[in-house]
Amino acid sequence: MPILVQKFGGTSVADAYRIHLAARRAVRALLDGNQVVMVVSAMGHTTDHLVGLARQVTRRPSKREMDMLLATGEQVSIALVAMAIHEAGYDAISLTGAQIGLLTDSRHTEAHIQTINTERIRRQLDQGRIVIVAGFQGVDPDFNITTLGRGGSDTTAVALAAALGAAACEIYTDVPGVYSADPRTVPRARKLDQIGYDEMLELAALGAGVMHPRSIELGMNFSVPIHVRSSFSEEPGTMIMSETRGLEEIVVRGCTLKPDIGRVTLIGLPNEPGIENTLFEPLARRHIIVDDIIQLVAPGGQTVSLSFTVSGSELGEAQALAETIPGRYAGAHFEIQKDLAKLSAVGAGMRSHSGVAATMFAALAAERINIENISTSEIVISVLVRAADAERALLTVHRAFGLEA
Amino acid sequence: MPILVQKFGGTSVADAYRIHLAARRAVRALLDGNQVVMVVSAMGHTTDHLVGLARQVTRRPSKREMDMLLATGEQVSIALVAMAIHEAGYDAISLTGAQIGLLTDSRHTEAHIQTINTERIRRQLDQGRIVIVAGFQGVDPDFNITTLGRGGSDTTAVALAAALGAAACEIYTDVPGVYSADPRTVPRARKLDQIGYDEMLELAALGAGVMHPRSIELGMNFSVPIHVRSSFSEEPGTMIMSETRGLEEIVVRGCTLKPDIGRVTLIGLPNEPGIENTLFEPLARRHIIVDDIIQLVAPGGQTVSLSFTVSGSELGEAQALAETIPGRYAGAHFEIQKDLAKLSAVGAGMRSHSGVAATMFAALAAERINIENISTSEIVISVLVRAADAERALLTVHRAFGLEA
Repeated sequence: MPILVQKFGGTSVADAYRIHLAARRAVRALLDGNQVVMVVSAMGHTTDHLVGLARQVTRRPSKREMDMLLATGEQVSIALVAMAIHEAGYDAISLTGAQIGLLTDSRHTEAHIQTINTERIRRQLDQGRIVIVAGFQGVDPDFNITTLGRGGSDTTAVALAAALGAAACEIYTDVPGVYSADPRTVPRARKLDQIGYDEMLELAALGAGVMHPRSIELGMNFSVPIHVRSSFSEEPGTMIMSETRGLEEIVVRGCTLKPDIGRVTLIGLPNEPGIENTLFEPLARRHIIVDDIIQLVAPGGQTVSLSFTVSGSELGEAQALAETIPGRYAGAHFEIQKDLAKLSAVGAGMRSHSGVAATMFAALAAERINIENISTSEIVISVLVRAADAERALLTVHRAFGLEA
Repeated sequence: MPILVQKFGGTSVADAYRIHLAARRAVRALLDGNQVVMVVSAMGHTTDHLVGLARQVTRRPSKREMDMLLATGEQVSIALVAMAIHEAGYDAISLTGAQIGLLTDSRHTEAHIQTINTERIRRQLDQGRIVIVAGFQGVDPDFNITTLGRGGSDTTAVALAAALGAAACEIYTDVPGVYSADPRTVPRARKLDQIGYDEMLELAALGAGVMHPRSIELGMNFSVPIHVRSSFSEEPGTMIMSETRGLEEIVVRGCTLKPDIGRVTLIGLPNEPGIENTLFEPLARRHIIVDDIIQLVAPGGQTVSLSFTVSGSELGEAQALAETIPGRYAGAHFEIQKDLAKLSAVGAGMRSHSGVAATMFAALAAERINIENISTSEIVISVLVRAADAERALLTVHRAFGLEA
């Protein structure tokens, strides 16, 4: 019998009504001939409530104790979901991360899964039960409760699907699927029927919020078909899977906008080996996340310009650090640019098609939008534009690639 | 270094302020040279909230899933208490029932402790940490989460104190200790400095709500000194311990009142072996808890009267059952009496003193209070009185035994 993993996020179990809806979905999948494993997040605002409790006690909660605290959120959900399935007349059992032997490392609040012991789950499934697993949590080798950090419940679901050899992992969420662009900005964005893991990874990394890159990567590594779909509709959503011939015919799959980006540029640094690390080593030490890096050798080859982008919230710290550099090198100086946005087009089809960049630049030029920066990877092309132009830029590029519904 | 177990109930960890108070107590005990284990209940109304969530989902929650749900309450508390101790600058670690290896049987919602593995706790204590244990919960041999039912957190605390060979088990609560009578009814009731396990057991069984009989019995079996005291004061409370010479000088230690009792009397049943079970066997099958039983052979020895008391809420069901009996025996009939109360005097000293009953009856007679029923055990004498007389009866008997402050 095929195994189906269904993951329900916080909004999909936010109250008793939605818990019954989620239960009904699982029951239907069971009646359709699947063995069903549900992975459930904490209800609605539970996590915020728990974080609030911790804040009332201390401003610096220990990470181990935060994990102990936060893991209760999913435990409440799984018990209630099991009750809802019982209420519907079917057999079900809830299991915590510890109970399914989801072993992680000891990095509290951002632990990584090491192994899952599927024996207990399989035994329950073979008894005809729906198994409800607490997402987001595990235990370390000393049996301390850990949590997986951002995207943790999706990661639990995909990891379980991989470990169980599931036919698919369904991610139930509050949107109908993955769109060619954020429908809040681009009303004519189109829901995608399919998308490749690598494309979805890039979209997620660029801020398309449906799934965390981590769980997509896991799905890619273990070839788990991931079906992102709405909790509140019967419509199929978006299937994230390996590339197919059909997929390759589409050149650009989607466009994203990452707002609030700042750029730091150091000009006139000596062109010598190791110069980059006078900057990036201290940036890394302060855990400032650098997005794009561009280095350009000046005419003559004596000096280089080094440019990098960070999120707006980290620009102040990045600037404070950059200020300390020029004084060490004669003629060096730095520039700061705020209020930028990064517009990206993503598509595995770019690999085999030329002209994608040209289409994008032409569309922007026609709207008289200036390009501040260009960066590319195998399946992404990104430009920095001024924040004021950003939404207009997204709309025109999305249209230029023929993505509108 | 002596080990001290401190148990904090729901009101003692109801909010951040009280959590800090509890933490401070533990730190003080640590600085006084103890190794400290805290056992913590769910915060204030958490359990009610969780039960409410379950009710929204189903009217018949599975007991296993209720345990999964309710166990989160203590888990939240222990994490917050650990944070509060960290905030005070001391080392602490929280542990769930599963993490301390508190093994129970599989009777969900009313599990009994089988063993506790103290190894992990000892290792943490030896590192100078305060260990904070979730009360009320454990795991069964299949690693299902169980809860211990009523009095569960006290039971965890006393069991841990026994397993660790602790010097004492402190029960922090919202009253200053054990009183010679309920101070809400008897304003001049006296706080007891000491009380024997057996006396406390009888008082608890008779409705003195400070501790559940179960945990007192455990303390008695393992000779754990139990110190019942207020969370909100520095005053010593009541020490529950083995009888001492000093203890025996006091004849009656306390008086209790159990309100809302009903009595069923069957008259004219044939005086033959097994007649009792025509009544008590079906009562037991319906889980009706019978309090006192009195059997009296009628003059001539042909028939017997059989009388038993139940709580008012079960009187209806008991009556329905009793109604079916007389029809089977010629001349038998039954009587029901509602609105009774049971007044008891408890004291280990009764064993060696006569005249206790006489003092009690005289006091009641002087107040012209009619005695409906008398029952005695080794250290208890109880009378049934009319509910309307009950409080007056308690006051006069409490005074007659010289218990007033």
